[in-house]
Amino acid sequence: MEQQLKFAVVGGDMRSANLAGLLASDGHSVRAYALEKYNFAENVTKAFDFAELMKRVDCVILPLPIQSDPDVLNAPLSLNSYSVNEIFNLFHIGQTVIAGKVGNSLFERAGHNGILLFDYLEREEFTVANSVACAEGAIQLAMEELPITLHNANCLVIGFGHIGKLLSHYLAGLGANVTASARKYGDLAWIRAYGYNPANTGSLSGMLGSFDVIFNTVPSRILTAELLEEVRENCLVIDLASKPGGIDFNAAKRLGVKVIWALSLPGKVAPVTAGIAMRDTIYNILSEWGVGK
Amino acid sequence: MEQQLKFAVVGGDMRSANLAGLLASDGHSVRAYALEKYNFAENVTKAFDFAELMKRVDCVILPLPIQSDPDVLNAPLSLNSYSVNEIFNLFHIGQTVIAGKVGNSLFERAGHNGILLFDYLEREEFTVANSVACAEGAIQLAMEELPITLHNANCLVIGFGHIGKLLSHYLAGLGANVTASARKYGDLAWIRAYGYNPANTGSLSGMLGSFDVIFNTVPSRILTAELLEEVRENCLVIDLASKPGGIDFNAAKRLGVKVIWALSLPGKVAPVTAGIAMRDTIYNILSEWGVGK
Amino acid sequence: MEQQLKFAVVGGDMRSANLAGLLASDGHSVRAYALEKYNFAENVTKAFDFAELMKRVDCVILPLPIQSDPDVLNAPLSLNSYSVNEIFNLFHIGQTVIAGKVGNSLFERAGHNGILLFDYLEREEFTVANSVACAEGAIQLAMEELPITLHNANCLVIGFGHIGKLLSHYLAGLGANVTASARKYGDLAWIRAYGYNPANTGSLSGMLGSFDVIFNTVPSRILTAELLEEVRENCLVIDLASKPGGIDFNAAKRLGVKVIWALSLPGKVAPVTAGIAMRDTIYNILSEWGVGK
Amino acid sequence: MEQQLKFAVVGGDMRSANLAGLLASDGHSVRAYALEKYNFAENVTKAFDFAELMKRVDCVILPLPIQSDPDVLNAPLSLNSYSVNEIFNLFHIGQTVIAGKVGNSLFERAGHNGILLFDYLEREEFTVANSVACAEGAIQLAMEELPITLHNANCLVIGFGHIGKLLSHYLAGLGANVTASARKYGDLAWIRAYGYNPANTGSLSGMLGSFDVIFNTVPSRILTAELLEEVRENCLVIDLASKPGGIDFNAAKRLGVKVIWALSLPGKVAPVTAGIAMRDTIYNILSEWGVGK
Repeated sequence: MEQQLKFAVVGGDMRSANLAGLLASDGHSVRAYALEKYNFAENVTKAFDFAELMKRVDCVILPLPIQSDPDVLNAPLSLNSYSVNEIFNLFHIGQTVIAGKVGNSLFERAGHNGILLFDYLEREEFTVANSVACAEGAIQLAMEELPITLHNANCLVIGFGHIGKLLSHYLAGLGANVTASARKYGDLAWIRAYGYNPANTGSLSGMLGSFDVIFNTVPSRILTAELLEEVRENCLVIDLASKPGGIDFNAAKRLGVKVIWALSLPGKVAPVTAGIAMRDTIYNILSEWGVGK
Repeated sequence: MEQQLKFAVVGGDMRSANLAGLLASDGHSVRAYALEKYNFAENVTKAFDFAELMKRVDCVILPLPIQSDPDVLNAPLSLNSYSVNEIFNLFHIGQTVIAGKVGNSLFERAGHNGILLFDYLEREEFTVANSVACAEGAIQLAMEELPITLHNANCLVIGFGHIGKLLSHYLAGLGANVTASARKYGDLAWIRAYGYNPANTGSLSGMLGSFDVIFNTVPSRILTAELLEEVRENCLVIDLASKPGGIDFNAAKRLGVKVIWALSLPGKVAPVTAGIAMRDTIYNILSEWGVGK
Repeated sequence: MEQQLKFAVVGGDMRSANLAGLLASDGHSVRAYALEKYNFAENVTKAFDFAELMKRVDCVILPLPIQSDPDVLNAPLSLNSYSVNEIFNLFHIGQTVIAGKVGNSLFERAGHNGILLFDYLEREEFTVANSVACAEGAIQLAMEELPITLHNANCLVIGFGHIGKLLSHYLAGLGANVTASARKYGDLAWIRAYGYNPANTGSLSGMLGSFDVIFNTVPSRILTAELLEEVRENCLVIDLASKPGGIDFNAAKRLGVKVIWALSLPGKVAPVTAGIAMRDTIYNILSEWGVGK
Repeated sequence: MEQQLKFAVVGGDMRSANLAGLLASDGHSVRAYALEKYNFAENVTKAFDFAELMKRVDCVILPLPIQSDPDVLNAPLSLNSYSVNEIFNLFHIGQTVIAGKVGNSLFERAGHNGILLFDYLEREEFTVANSVACAEGAIQLAMEELPITLHNANCLVIGFGHIGKLLSHYLAGLGANVTASARKYGDLAWIRAYGYNPANTGSLSGMLGSFDVIFNTVPSRILTAELLEEVRENCLVIDLASKPGGIDFNAAKRLGVKVIWALSLPGKVAPVTAGIAMRDTIYNILSEWGVGK
């Protein structure tokens, strides 16, 4: 950003807190709201009157995800609770707002009210940067849980989307034996091109017994009770898929298969990197819309 | 393929010749037509009467690309010349035909005549497998032409599509310093995620002087005379883009920049691998359409 | 091992416990002594009379390291304490004994008494396998401690011995920017050949401020107070060197530099893999000496 | 080098010619002798009177290898022939001379005459840098000869010394399936640590039929007639070992196995990189001996 802007960072977890510091370090004026528990450096000022804050701000940064429960602002670093709708009430026409995992109703409302609303998750560059942190977090988890090294371990990565691609890449870099699964011929060709063993997500039966760790990235029930029965004793299953997840958790419990459902990894394992991903995406959005030039 | 089929491999270069052998090795009955110059093993029979051949064939394999000049079958291993239209005249209703780089008019005709016509190039798995061979061919070319090792060489890969992705991956595997360029924020994020230096395809000016070799994969005029002037003496430029190519070849000549326009690399550097890619794609097409089951 | 042998696994940590199970899985007869706290599968029998045990054993496995304090057997999984000397008193002439970090005096004694004594640490294959686990453990630690991803982090690896080589390799595989330091021209050439940034261990001053994490592998005081002053705020320092370590720990504390002295990582992060390394080395030793053929 | 020196580059191939240019580019005064056929840039002066040249030179650079036939200077870029002995006659006491593959008799003579004689090949950093170029040259050769891509090819690298290590590394980087062989347990552990399939050089029988290309780096007869019989039809064998080579060339011919004995690859495939390796090594030698400070 060439020009210095006025940002309001509103709610969110450690990523938002780090984001506020990063924006301030770039010379922007940054006010933090609904982040009272966090101890900011002096270049970030805490704000307490939201309506007042909205009067003099170029861009409002809401959390990822924007809400924890319906209409409840996701604000784990705040002492209070806030209504997303009330926050939207205070945006003026033309207000630039960036948030994460925004539902259709909020987009509609933004459309009616002339609010320029953007979602991180619609930005490919954010998804990629987030997936890097997510893949590395999954590797950390596996290292922590397994009594063997990932080096030379037999790893299955189910799904070859953003996270699947990067997780396979880093696992191979650590010397793991990587099998990646997909359904489309094209994805299977990419899996071969990058040097992993290909498998068909739809026909995993018969091969599951050979893996030390299985990472699922597909958000639909892949590992059914039937398939979980094939899994080797001591095999670790890490589910990276958002709700409803890809594993029959009850069956896993019954069968004694250790499953970790790892959600929101970037914010947990690498909040600074995750904050950087948010910052870069914000700059890209503003730059595309001519804000701050 | 579970079932044994009758294939006619018609025209094409070394890839088609290898393909015929590969299909025969899998137990299929294979007749080769318009491939007289090639010396097949005994499991491939040459055919000389096309009309007769069409009477008893399950699948016809035409070349990639299907034609060299308008209506002229691409048949460098034949002693004769053939009209693509006349060949199409002899297909019966319901005939399965697989070809490469098929134009709209042929697809229209196939539609009218009830011919099941498929194009390799519309198959992602073929494009990927072909890009592997193309990327490796580009590396071979660079090794042959450069008096330095690619290890530690400064390499620019322009464009981050199929070939750009794989070329960057293999160059990095050889220890080159890889810069990859793209236009979209998302592609630039992928470039960073895989560990290459990112550059914007639209603003290469000012950085071109630092590269030992530049690979272009974008089929539009990227390296203009103006940009070519910035290129270091002894820099090698390899253009992998199909017509019209991405380089101002006249300007390069005038400026003394060595440019190699490398087309059809897979067939030249790895005809067997290219034949395997064709075979696998053919099997996938037939399997999706229920042929041979 | 073709032949089934009688092993006594005596003392040691989780690695020894795992080793006992691995040997038993290969069909050997395994007795565990001084490992009472561990709950073995039924193919490993606990022994309680050492003298009796020694009468019918082909190979005795002592811990790595053999002693925790002078003359005290390293036996954290035992309820009792044992004198290494008394254990040696009960070995008969020709007894094969494999232990770790054996001092000269024990080797002398073994020589006088006709005991075939071997040390894991004199075996290159063990050192390498152990270094794999150590390098991966260091990566796990760094992931746990850092609020950023290792991907794209600036990492310094001091020393290019076993651990330095593998740690650099895996860090690069994760997409970190790896600088490795050494003193010899030859090692620096290897560092370049593998594609890392080279640095001279003797002249790190002036560059230390650019790293997010520093791994030391050299067991002599490299990071003096003077150098630690150059380290960036939030930089993490992980010392993998055995005593006396490579860092001025007092100075680090005074300067607020976070240092983790990570010893015995393989047994902590990957006890099964570490047990496998012991087993393979034992087999190699026995095979070279013709035991068990 | 801080100080500017006077170099005489005497004889040698393209590497020496490139070396002369590189030294001159660094500001040194460079005279070329016995390199008449090469067209130097203007910062390198050709010399024609060797005795005169020796009067005012700080360091003499002889070729690698120093002689082609006994006592015949290796000077393919010269129009004349020179006796190594006569050249040595003209060195004065204390003369610094750097050459390659120097025999014992010349070292003895240098000792008697007070000549400071160094051999590139005794320098680890040179061997490593040379091995990088050699490994890449072997890859280029394989790409040129094989009708398949190295990606996904089954490659055997016999011997895990300098070239074996780097060749395995780069082949893996290209996506080849790499098996590396060695004899020592320690080397086999390194092979595993880097993620290649391990094989024992002494027991290759029974597995040779699975490789598409075999690279030998061991300078003793490994691939006997008996083993060559196991090699797959169309398998390419590249021998990188210096005399006597590692392959029974007669048997290979008889059996129809394609063998390429690839000697002196660095000078052929990457003369500039090879010249840089010489320059860096020369600077290191001079720096260690306090010349030029």
